[in-house]
Amino acid sequence: MNHTLTELKNSLAEISDLKAAAAVLSWDQMALMPPGAAAARARQLATMERLAHEKATAPELGRLLDELQPLLEGLSPDSPDVALIRVAARDFERAAKIPPKFTAEFSEHTSRTYEAWAKARAQKDFQIVRPLLEKTLDYSRQLANFYPGYQHIADPLIDELDEGLTVAVIRPLFAQLREELTRLVGAITARPAPDDSCLKQHFPEADQWRFGLNVAERLGYDFNRGRQDKSPHPFTTSFSIDDVRITTRIKENRLSEALFSTIHETGHALYEQGIDPRWEATPLASGTAMGVHESQSRLWENLVGRSRHFWQYFYPKLQEVFPQQLGQVDFEVFYHALNKVERSLIRTDADEVTYNLHVMIRFDLELAMLEGKLAVADLREAWNERYRTDLGVTPPDDGLGVLQDMHWYSGTIGGYFQSYTLGNIMSAQFYEAALAHHPQIPTEIAAGRFETLHGWLKTNIYQYGRQLSGTTIVQRATGKPITIEPYVRYLKNKYRELYP
Amino acid sequence: MNHTLTELKNSLAEISDLKAAAAVLSWDQMALMPPGAAAARARQLATMERLAHEKATAPELGRLLDELQPLLEGLSPDSPDVALIRVAARDFERAAKIPPKFTAEFSEHTSRTYEAWAKARAQKDFQIVRPLLEKTLDYSRQLANFYPGYQHIADPLIDELDEGLTVAVIRPLFAQLREELTRLVGAITARPAPDDSCLKQHFPEADQWRFGLNVAERLGYDFNRGRQDKSPHPFTTSFSIDDVRITTRIKENRLSEALFSTIHETGHALYEQGIDPRWEATPLASGTAMGVHESQSRLWENLVGRSRHFWQYFYPKLQEVFPQQLGQVDFEVFYHALNKVERSLIRTDADEVTYNLHVMIRFDLELAMLEGKLAVADLREAWNERYRTDLGVTPPDDGLGVLQDMHWYSGTIGGYFQSYTLGNIMSAQFYEAALAHHPQIPTEIAAGRFETLHGWLKTNIYQYGRQLSGTTIVQRATGKPITIEPYVRYLKNKYRELYP
Repeated sequence: MNHTLTELKNSLAEISDLKAAAAVLSWDQMALMPPGAAAARARQLATMERLAHEKATAPELGRLLDELQPLLEGLSPDSPDVALIRVAARDFERAAKIPPKFTAEFSEHTSRTYEAWAKARAQKDFQIVRPLLEKTLDYSRQLANFYPGYQHIADPLIDELDEGLTVAVIRPLFAQLREELTRLVGAITARPAPDDSCLKQHFPEADQWRFGLNVAERLGYDFNRGRQDKSPHPFTTSFSIDDVRITTRIKENRLSEALFSTIHETGHALYEQGIDPRWEATPLASGTAMGVHESQSRLWENLVGRSRHFWQYFYPKLQEVFPQQLGQVDFEVFYHALNKVERSLIRTDADEVTYNLHVMIRFDLELAMLEGKLAVADLREAWNERYRTDLGVTPPDDGLGVLQDMHWYSGTIGGYFQSYTLGNIMSAQFYEAALAHHPQIPTEIAAGRFETLHGWLKTNIYQYGRQLSGTTIVQRATGKPITIEPYVRYLKNKYRELYP
Repeated sequence: MNHTLTELKNSLAEISDLKAAAAVLSWDQMALMPPGAAAARARQLATMERLAHEKATAPELGRLLDELQPLLEGLSPDSPDVALIRVAARDFERAAKIPPKFTAEFSEHTSRTYEAWAKARAQKDFQIVRPLLEKTLDYSRQLANFYPGYQHIADPLIDELDEGLTVAVIRPLFAQLREELTRLVGAITARPAPDDSCLKQHFPEADQWRFGLNVAERLGYDFNRGRQDKSPHPFTTSFSIDDVRITTRIKENRLSEALFSTIHETGHALYEQGIDPRWEATPLASGTAMGVHESQSRLWENLVGRSRHFWQYFYPKLQEVFPQQLGQVDFEVFYHALNKVERSLIRTDADEVTYNLHVMIRFDLELAMLEGKLAVADLREAWNERYRTDLGVTPPDDGLGVLQDMHWYSGTIGGYFQSYTLGNIMSAQFYEAALAHHPQIPTEIAAGRFETLHGWLKTNIYQYGRQLSGTTIVQRATGKPITIEPYVRYLKNKYRELYP
């Protein structure tokens, strides 16, 4: 049995190494690669992914997992070996259920759709990509149907990234949250908008870069096991627990861009760097559910990085770096500028309060499409209608409307957007739990100290990697299932003070 | 048959992609990787190399190659398919002859020896690594004996990197060259040494970096298909014909360091970037013999980069970048400083004239060891003796003597050092042939134009990749087999003018 377990670990390490190689190729492609290398790199990446998939669905791996099932019975469900076998078996079963032919066809369809989307967006014309998106909906349904026995057709898609969560759990949470948020946004936007022009001066790139690195380091990002580069779209990637990298994007005329993208990605990176080293080279060496991952980027970005306490420590330092731009700007003006709330069209530029309204529009629309209640042909109208009702704004064209996010046009319809709002909800639930154990955290943050918070998150979330599912982690760390109450409480308290 | 050829190409592309992934992992490790990632990266690299080796020695590949043999008979020996099958078969046969057990053992031995060497060098004590080096000699002999039928035991080792060359060819070339060089060095060092203090001022890193990039670009390095990074030891690496990267090392108190390492690596990179795109994702998509590769780095570094014509164009530009340091330094003083010849102990720091004496000492000593005429126990004495007779200097300790190069301590004894001097010899032979066709090349270089030279090299050498062997390329491009005459002529003409 020990020998079989060793064989399993070797096999998983090989898959992990192939995926790490693909991740390095992909990181390089997005951050450093010379443009002429695009075709060769696409081929190399496809080869790595194909080899990883072959190994991940190899009958030998299935045989090893079957042989190891009896082992599970004799062990505690909390034993590391049980977790390893459970997660490996889940990955194997999910992967093995999808016919290779489907993967190849869908992958080819996705590439074509992505290209059509880029063209459609440039021309601001949804009709260009509509027929392909109709096929995407078919593929998404087919994919869900490889996992029969679901309650809602989106459930298998959601389960891929947010194990254990279903439409039945998420829909009521989002309905409550939508109600609370529309009320809050209404109250806020009835007040005078703060002036955020102090953030829109010229901030030289090199100074922004250095300040961001200092912030990341102080939050606890270990640069001995990571680095930051620049890329058009910021992201975090992990090649091993000891090599977790982030990227950022600097705009010289917009201070918040690099600053908050660095803090956001630092949140993801702290999670990946905090996983117990015992999980190195196993499928457990990554954050658990996508929503939990997003909760960490948002916790550090918003609950910490946009808080009064955080800037009590960092604002004087920022003023030292940019004396001409910020030397004369009052703390309150700066703090209000950072937390300006406005009704807007673009999700990725949205503030903390309106952001989830954008996400929930996508979530509801994709459920309606999967259920067959909304035709792709009517998507554009449905989108614009929801923006009118939920956000009080109307997209003047498809580029600022239904074509703005790449998600549906580069993957499935369904399975992804829920993570963003689940992440925000959980960020406050985790933070409140940390504060209940360590009420001194805000005071520490105001002194530039993040160890207590970081330590609590590491102990209760990070260390486990995928050893525990997202829902188990929430329950154990906070004593409750996912609930919107802490998040609504957090937003109300913060924004009532900001917009009295 | 066409189907079999397609299968072969797919199989070779897969191997090529795995090797490219390993090359990216390795480049990242040396240039960018955070230090904490070392252990994980070593494991990932080992996995990529193991998978590539498995595919490269797979019985299916041998079967495909066997099936394709009849195809060769009907085709011209210059046909691309013939070249592809010939090179693929050579690689397969060479790889398949080595038992996996030997590779694993030798690789483990090499790691241990390298560590012991690092320790021995720090302590300047050859005895620390001597017992391991004795085993390396055994392994090197065993490796040669996997390819029976050789004339000299070093021949199979040399053939790995410099296909078609043998001790019988190289030894007389080196003997003549050694005689010429010792005479030339004697004549030069009898003259007063030039003052090279102008190169040893403070040259800020950022300015050196920019100047080096400009030089590389002007020489013809395509940054759309490449990039430069920094690393402790400069190197060139190719992930595809469209992604060939170089690294450099900057010393602020030594101008020649980054400048000539950039030009040297640019020479290697021009070669790799110049390969016919038809060879992408095949084993032919790399420079042919190691000696030919080195001929290109040395041609650009020395025959071009240390020439009077080159600096007629670039010196005024360099003076503009460093007005304080070089504004008052006369062209002749600068040019003489760049070409200072001196008897010294360290190969990698040696000037163009003495350099090959260092290399040939290694070559002769490794042949003597392989032949059983020199015991490893006596290597240190033999080394010091040869430095006395050939270079007129005596290493004060082993660190500056027998322990200075990592080669024997990180691979085989034999098979590598010949390339360096063969490269120098061929660099002049190629350059003379290019000048015979295009006598205007020096005048163009003095005007900062390198297209004619670059074009001739691309047409006669680069485009072929491994389609032609090194010896064939030399014969076709220059009309002769390898000969030292052009190289000796070049050195004498240049240094008689410098040291009249």
